[in-house]
Amino acid sequence: MAEAIRHDKTARQLRLLSDALDSGRLGPVKRLVNTLSPAEIGNLLESLPPGKRTVVWGLVDPEDDGEVLLHVGEDVRENLIADMDPDEIVAAVEDLDIDDLADLVEDLPDTVIDEVLKSMDRENRERLEQVLSYPEDTAGRLMNPDVVTVRTDTTVDVVLRYLRLRGELPDHTDHLYVVSRRHQYLGRLAVTALLTHEPGTPINKLIDDEQPAIDVGETATEVARQFSDHDWISAPVVDDNNILLGRITIDDVVDIIREQAEHQALGAAGLDEDEDLFSPVPRAWRRRLMWLSINLGTAFLAAKVVGVFADTIDQLVALAVLMPIVAGMGGNAGTQVLALMVRGLALGQVGASNIRTLLWKEARVALLNGLVLGTVLALIVLAWFRDIGLALVIFIALTANLLFAALAGVMVPVTLKRAGYDPALASSIFLTTVTDVMGFFTFLGLATLLLVR
Amino acid sequence: MAEAIRHDKTARQLRLLSDALDSGRLGPVKRLVNTLSPAEIGNLLESLPPGKRTVVWGLVDPEDDGEVLLHVGEDVRENLIADMDPDEIVAAVEDLDIDDLADLVEDLPDTVIDEVLKSMDRENRERLEQVLSYPEDTAGRLMNPDVVTVRTDTTVDVVLRYLRLRGELPDHTDHLYVVSRRHQYLGRLAVTALLTHEPGTPINKLIDDEQPAIDVGETATEVARQFSDHDWISAPVVDDNNILLGRITIDDVVDIIREQAEHQALGAAGLDEDEDLFSPVPRAWRRRLMWLSINLGTAFLAAKVVGVFADTIDQLVALAVLMPIVAGMGGNAGTQVLALMVRGLALGQVGASNIRTLLWKEARVALLNGLVLGTVLALIVLAWFRDIGLALVIFIALTANLLFAALAGVMVPVTLKRAGYDPALASSIFLTTVTDVMGFFTFLGLATLLLVR
Repeated sequence: MAEAIRHDKTARQLRLLSDALDSGRLGPVKRLVNTLSPAEIGNLLESLPPGKRTVVWGLVDPEDDGEVLLHVGEDVRENLIADMDPDEIVAAVEDLDIDDLADLVEDLPDTVIDEVLKSMDRENRERLEQVLSYPEDTAGRLMNPDVVTVRTDTTVDVVLRYLRLRGELPDHTDHLYVVSRRHQYLGRLAVTALLTHEPGTPINKLIDDEQPAIDVGETATEVARQFSDHDWISAPVVDDNNILLGRITIDDVVDIIREQAEHQALGAAGLDEDEDLFSPVPRAWRRRLMWLSINLGTAFLAAKVVGVFADTIDQLVALAVLMPIVAGMGGNAGTQVLALMVRGLALGQVGASNIRTLLWKEARVALLNGLVLGTVLALIVLAWFRDIGLALVIFIALTANLLFAALAGVMVPVTLKRAGYDPALASSIFLTTVTDVMGFFTFLGLATLLLVR
Repeated sequence: MAEAIRHDKTARQLRLLSDALDSGRLGPVKRLVNTLSPAEIGNLLESLPPGKRTVVWGLVDPEDDGEVLLHVGEDVRENLIADMDPDEIVAAVEDLDIDDLADLVEDLPDTVIDEVLKSMDRENRERLEQVLSYPEDTAGRLMNPDVVTVRTDTTVDVVLRYLRLRGELPDHTDHLYVVSRRHQYLGRLAVTALLTHEPGTPINKLIDDEQPAIDVGETATEVARQFSDHDWISAPVVDDNNILLGRITIDDVVDIIREQAEHQALGAAGLDEDEDLFSPVPRAWRRRLMWLSINLGTAFLAAKVVGVFADTIDQLVALAVLMPIVAGMGGNAGTQVLALMVRGLALGQVGASNIRTLLWKEARVALLNGLVLGTVLALIVLAWFRDIGLALVIFIALTANLLFAALAGVMVPVTLKRAGYDPALASSIFLTTVTDVMGFFTFLGLATLLLVR
């Protein structure tokens, strides 16, 4: 139920905005848009068809342009950038944080990138180049080099004076990092500790040296896992020599978690998470065609199996009526096992040590389902076709296919993962191929053996 | 690829632990377990079959017991609590934060709840009762009443002295809240502002009164949306009279986001997100049986449609061979549309204002897919069965079913949402019912009209 009223606020804004757009009064649209946060504006732009999107994009306060670009998917981002002239783009992005700028830079036209680099001071340019030198989806790419550091040989009082002199701190600064003379990471110092301790307290009494630093090469997923496991707000990033390079903050981690969830949800249907509600038809079509072509191939495989038994079907047409039930139930049962396995693999909970136990558990569940659903199905078939042999055959075939489904549900994602593929994306095609082929094969095969001459 | 190496650390720990358990040497297991954070221990416990799980749970440092219970799904939690005696449970939970305790309390035996309440001082007992008085999945249930407040008519210096006197601050305190004499929320004060401003600065110069407070009745989902949209670390919770009741912190929000993603991924397969890899077979079976029973019902509906055309199939058995292709392709294409729509609805991006545009876009994509895939399919059928009429019929039927799939992919989740149901959970059953029924109906119906006498 919670889902039903989820994000009603956005939907309401969308309705208001849409009404205002339809009436052509741009004043109210502009006022409405500029009460929103950049993330909300991004969300709104994604929900508009390209025509209206361009109109609204033109009304966004130029100061927010950069932040808004950060909060939309890649397809929409390209679309928005195409509507801007180079000066506008440079103005929009030059004030962004280094990590955010690094996130955007690859979607900018080359001439604009040169302009942006020219507009930056040397220190920031070097920082940007450093961040961009790390591969995408690693800690190096997520970090912001703007970090407040202190030394061990000082007191609360001195740090407070330094901070007053420095002025504003970077967003989400919950800890200062303590470094050696050579800028090696030694530990962290909670800003709240500075507030609750007497001015004379030596810093080395307040250092928390137990927080491990994140290695600059660590994957984004591993970074997100560590943040959730330790409830961090920010964490230091270091290189192989333990030199402090920057920090990652929770807001980026929340984005990673959301993106991963979208990646899995859309990926399971063969879509890219950057796919946009209003992607241009030719582009949307090309992406889907590939997936559907693979599915067409596997469907032919299943059809070939049915084709082998064409003579049997010719003698007993009830088989054609019932065979989709056996195949479909296998697919549904396998999908349930698959969903559990994909989550377990993603959390690192499934490995060589427990696969056998899992298989045995799922086999028992499948057997119970087979007994109960198979009996129900057999009774209905008996009442419908008055053929006890047919009822027996469908009972056995369903139970067998549920067992195949359990086996495939466990083994397909595990095998894909071992082979280096993402189990969330490709598993379902393999699974339904197994359940279709085995469902048709056992049902029609048994019928050929037992029911026809 | 990132997925493939995801959480390898957990998998590695699991392997080490499993080896140590198998060898029966509990000393190394204990040492290994107690190097982990409570969240990591929870993850590990979830990955163990019940027998080993009990052994490892007995080795966890009792100090961590409460936190570990917070980090496992409900099924595993029940399982772990069943292994503890009442004294252990009271000791494990009495030091938890109020919001965490509120999260656990419903899974505890009644006698234990009484003991826990008795062990608390009056203030904390009242706070717990207050939090428990709000419905689950609302801001009231997520908040922690432990908040540091200050008044407007004071200076940085005075606040610093007060904080030093108070000592430790609650976790994730990035802002203090400024309240009136009647404890009404007036605004927030960044702890970093206290660090970067001179001691004499009046507090009312530093107040940020632009952050809206969260209403105590707001849904968890809406809370999570606001946190992501505004990059908050913490936010104040108020009642209808703007009285400050507590605060919500980002760590709880991260949990909500993760749970929602799991809820959607598992819910789409008819599973509960509390389902555990090693749920006891009878329980796992009962949950799945319900979903599969519904699927059996819809499968019969499709079979009935096929049954209507039994005579046609009897005359042309190729139809039985090919009909699963038409139905299956429709299901796959519809699932792609559905995945996009479910995300759009969850983000509030789909509403009355853009459904028609979406339908039109998806219809064009479906038509293009129908033309291309239908042609490929027709050519293969022509080569296989040497029947130009059959090739024509399957071309038309596939294109028609892709159009039905696009229509159902857009309208099923929208209609479910309007009716107050969660589109992520029930949509796929309705969708595949449409694509199966319409796939069989158009293909066999056209064949009956055009191919047989």
